[in-house]
Amino acid sequence: MAQRPRDIPGALTAAGGRTDSTANRADATTDRADPTANRADTATTTAVAPPGAGRSPEPSRTPQTPRTHQPPRTPPTRRAPDTGRPPHGTGSAADVLARYLHQQATEFLRGLRLHGDSGHGAGGAAEEAAEAVRLLRGAARRISGTLHVFRPLAEVPWTDQFRSELAWLTETLGREYACAARLARLRGALHRLSGAAEAGSAAAPAVGAARAGALLERQLTLARTRAHSAALQALGSARFHAVADAVAVLSTDPPLDPSAHDLPAQDALPLLAEQSHRLLLEAVGTLPLAAAGLPYNAEALSHGLADAGVPAAESRQDAPWHQVRLLVRLRRYAQEVLDEQHQTEIEPGLTVRLLNAGQALDRHRDAAEAAAYAAAAARTPRIAPATAYALGVLHADQRYEVEAARFAFGRAWQRMGVAR
Amino acid sequence: MAQRPRDIPGALTAAGGRTDSTANRADATTDRADPTANRADTATTTAVAPPGAGRSPEPSRTPQTPRTHQPPRTPPTRRAPDTGRPPHGTGSAADVLARYLHQQATEFLRGLRLHGDSGHGAGGAAEEAAEAVRLLRGAARRISGTLHVFRPLAEVPWTDQFRSELAWLTETLGREYACAARLARLRGALHRLSGAAEAGSAAAPAVGAARAGALLERQLTLARTRAHSAALQALGSARFHAVADAVAVLSTDPPLDPSAHDLPAQDALPLLAEQSHRLLLEAVGTLPLAAAGLPYNAEALSHGLADAGVPAAESRQDAPWHQVRLLVRLRRYAQEVLDEQHQTEIEPGLTVRLLNAGQALDRHRDAAEAAAYAAAAARTPRIAPATAYALGVLHADQRYEVEAARFAFGRAWQRMGVAR
Repeated sequence: MAQRPRDIPGALTAAGGRTDSTANRADATTDRADPTANRADTATTTAVAPPGAGRSPEPSRTPQTPRTHQPPRTPPTRRAPDTGRPPHGTGSAADVLARYLHQQATEFLRGLRLHGDSGHGAGGAAEEAAEAVRLLRGAARRISGTLHVFRPLAEVPWTDQFRSELAWLTETLGREYACAARLARLRGALHRLSGAAEAGSAAAPAVGAARAGALLERQLTLARTRAHSAALQALGSARFHAVADAVAVLSTDPPLDPSAHDLPAQDALPLLAEQSHRLLLEAVGTLPLAAAGLPYNAEALSHGLADAGVPAAESRQDAPWHQVRLLVRLRRYAQEVLDEQHQTEIEPGLTVRLLNAGQALDRHRDAAEAAAYAAAAARTPRIAPATAYALGVLHADQRYEVEAARFAFGRAWQRMGVAR
Repeated sequence: MAQRPRDIPGALTAAGGRTDSTANRADATTDRADPTANRADTATTTAVAPPGAGRSPEPSRTPQTPRTHQPPRTPPTRRAPDTGRPPHGTGSAADVLARYLHQQATEFLRGLRLHGDSGHGAGGAAEEAAEAVRLLRGAARRISGTLHVFRPLAEVPWTDQFRSELAWLTETLGREYACAARLARLRGALHRLSGAAEAGSAAAPAVGAARAGALLERQLTLARTRAHSAALQALGSARFHAVADAVAVLSTDPPLDPSAHDLPAQDALPLLAEQSHRLLLEAVGTLPLAAAGLPYNAEALSHGLADAGVPAAESRQDAPWHQVRLLVRLRRYAQEVLDEQHQTEIEPGLTVRLLNAGQALDRHRDAAEAAAYAAAAARTPRIAPATAYALGVLHADQRYEVEAARFAFGRAWQRMGVAR
């Protein structure tokens, strides 16, 4: 098995990038002085603002080891070493990857700029901040994914550490929005379960549902506020600036292996994309798709009451699906690189199907997390039985959403099989 | 719309049948002396024993009006009045109906005999008693259904009152077994939700699930015991004996309209069976089959938390499905009469499909009742939040069973449409 994003150990050291100044290391929470002001294309990274929007796709792997100094990567040493063969120009694997990484770095920096403009998310700028975080996270995921799928062409181990830092960033920025989305999902479910969604229904929800809603609102609002503070703190840290600087440098100096400059794109890139497809197929092969394809198989809730303490059984059951979610996404990014290679969408049908499959698994993840949250909320001390009852209904409802998402993925995957 | 079984008002009066003795009227709970000993074919009705087995398909309509004396039906007055035409013999509608009713009456009396043999259900005879009640109820439903579908050929209003008495009997005898079946269903669901169904799983259920199970066990065992007593009481009543006697007389003297003796079976019976089919189609036409055909439509739980007091919204949603369940059953019995007419199963495919559709709707009814029961149990005062939570999960689980049953019915119904 190839390494998964979450499996990559270590971290980019704060001072290990190309940051010219190390003055704002540590846990600075204030806007730092611009240590990269001497680089035009990274000037925007200095606009530090409240954390932005999105969902948390990969568990962060904040490095546990104390940051150590690494020899700084000296930017311009790796470009097309003289191998006796003339470089392929626009046709080499390195060229294609560089173009794609450049685009993503540009998006990332656009996100940073937008975030700075949003004035810390105050007032109507909250949407702007959310959009900024969406851009930042999307670009970070694509950069990380590309460096993973095309790892044989990348400059390891630096890129592995870099990817772990990108994961930390996307997770940290996304947590606030994940809380908001979870609250919206659970609130919507309670609304629906109260029959309030029906036209002409003016019925107030029952006591239990109202209390459960208030409890979730309180807990998730608190979690969101905490996540907001944590994101603010992270955005002011040297660690964040090191990542932002490294992204900025991607534009001009992609961290690619010298061999990538010699390999024609059409030889190297489809092969590695295909390998990522194979890993995806293998992972999907371990899923219980036959059972999931039968509607109302009641599989997702089969451990709904297994253990009041920890929903470990459900987590175990969900894990392979979460894994496939990540692999679908990697495969989608790989396809984007191939599209970049051909300067056109080469398999639009595949792209759409990957997107659909991924969306089903996003829904799977969201529902699974919401269900676990409802179960956890029911363990709040001193709640009324009616509240606990409503949370039980809510938990089961979200677990059925999990099952429905698996069913939807199965359908999407069938279409994928027909297409290839 | 034709009258539905449950809509028929009035009741057979206790003294209105052909019971020769009225000594054991009222609420006698003891085995009564045999008031019909002078009739050989009804002698078996005197074996009074604990109530038997089955489910309660039709809400009983115990007459609210005080029993009034009706002139007793004088058994042998209606046979083939002289209409100038010779009776069709085996070919008349009356002949076919009489044969079918005779068979069902025989089954009923066999059930009664078996119930007497079971020695009040003590020890290993409990299964025998359950089988006896299954026979009794099945025959009673068929007699009632036949008299309803072929009502224009029956001797109304006597048969209408008789049918209401049969409904009371099936309901009274079935309630005990309905409690047992409901407990088994809820216990099974709790078991499944605790992950205990998994191979090699020795995990004890969580506290909440265990407590919820104990609560349901306690409440449903109590309800079952009460239903048992009520059935015992009913079996000793003059009302019951009047019904049993009336059934016994069916064998020799079916309550049919004189016109039935003149009509050729092939003219009258398929027409009325077709009419019952049309009523079924109309009722199915009002069901939201398009929505139910989309798996995971989350429709059945859309009012799961609507009102903590009464699950009125869910009942309203379920009612048309319950109605169709009864119509499917009537249609099935009508088909049995047509089979009797031709002395062979004339449309085996249709029979199987009606059976499948009916089974899906039985499951729908069972799950709906179990869900309502779980919700009601959650309103027991002073239960722990963990218990209430488990009952909430259980309620939602059973409502999804309701949804799954609707989906299954939709599939079965589609096949029905293709066939006809």
